[in-house]
Amino acid sequence: MALELFSDRAPEDVSIDDIAAAAGASRPLVYHYFPGKQALYEEALRRAGRELAGRFEETADGPLSERLFRVMGRYLDFVQSHAAGFTALLRGGSVAASPDADAVIDQVRRAAQEQILRHLGLPDPSPTLRRTVRAWIANAEISSLDWLADRSVPAETLQLHLVQELVAALAVAATRDPELAALLAEFFATERPDGPTARLVRDLTATLAT
Amino acid sequence: MALELFSDRAPEDVSIDDIAAAAGASRPLVYHYFPGKQALYEEALRRAGRELAGRFEETADGPLSERLFRVMGRYLDFVQSHAAGFTALLRGGSVAASPDADAVIDQVRRAAQEQILRHLGLPDPSPTLRRTVRAWIANAEISSLDWLADRSVPAETLQLHLVQELVAALAVAATRDPELAALLAEFFATERPDGPTARLVRDLTATLAT
Repeated sequence: MALELFSDRAPEDVSIDDIAAAAGASRPLVYHYFPGKQALYEEALRRAGRELAGRFEETADGPLSERLFRVMGRYLDFVQSHAAGFTALLRGGSVAASPDADAVIDQVRRAAQEQILRHLGLPDPSPTLRRTVRAWIANAEISSLDWLADRSVPAETLQLHLVQELVAALAVAATRDPELAALLAEFFATERPDGPTARLVRDLTATLAT
Repeated sequence: MALELFSDRAPEDVSIDDIAAAAGASRPLVYHYFPGKQALYEEALRRAGRELAGRFEETADGPLSERLFRVMGRYLDFVQSHAAGFTALLRGGSVAASPDADAVIDQVRRAAQEQILRHLGLPDPSPTLRRTVRAWIANAEISSLDWLADRSVPAETLQLHLVQELVAALAVAATRDPELAALLAEFFATERPDGPTARLVRDLTATLAT
């Protein structure tokens, strides 16, 4: 697929000739369908955005942290298989940055936020809860970028840590949001002793006790 | 000061005529010194960035969470007095967005990160700790933008919450970073019973016990 070129390389390193070659099409034909590289890039971005948003979908079965753990596994697979494109897009300063590209990124962020809020199941999430989820999505982006650059831990470790960081942020938010507190109490009751939440609580207790 | 126009309005709403009027200078004179509005905007941004970075400086006295609380007070004062410019810059999609503007923003983020790491006093912060601080800086940006848009809580409340969110994130990071764990134990020993950290621990205990 021609548009996959943008996954493997930064947009400035992809030429119309590369795209034509990958698509088995002539340069004029590529130009016939797309007014230029920027339009092709934004189309690739929209497709990648839809694919990524699809990976956030998860049935509402089992403990919350384990659902989230599965979602983050699929997210990190996506990040790995689109490493160059993901980095070029989110590192900032890309020559391909544009209001349209920003709009696609924001749509994906919103889709992720809505999926998480849906799993929490509160009909009318408080501003505190919305802010907590948005900030955690930024954390996931920043952490993935760092991780792509240094791979300092295995993917599964980052996957676990991001889940635990959301659980911790939700617990802090719950101190200011009684509705969320009641909900988390229910969710925590379903967590398994070897699940991400129980492991975090054990690790925190051990760390803070020393 | 002519450049303060960019604090009160989005860059697209400031004209060279406005700048000339505010500076008591002629339009040709403004053009003589600056090649255009973008250059003036970037100069305003660099000055604002230096001022903001200065507000992160804080003597290493007293409990960590109280130092941070003072810094966040100054940060939120800055955000309030540069509301329109801050929002236009960070909301994305601004017509004034440019690689140079991004570079100034990144410099301020790095200054904030270095100040926080300096207060923690670890000579060689782990990747986990750096990532935690960077993600929290993104949280502070996102939360300030939301807050400027809705002012759903008093500034002092957001100030406290951001401090507590960093303390919580550091505690989670400490479960994966023994050096940080030892350091936090020392810091927590100096926290006052009515300080941000002690209040967070009390609130979390009460919330999770219900």
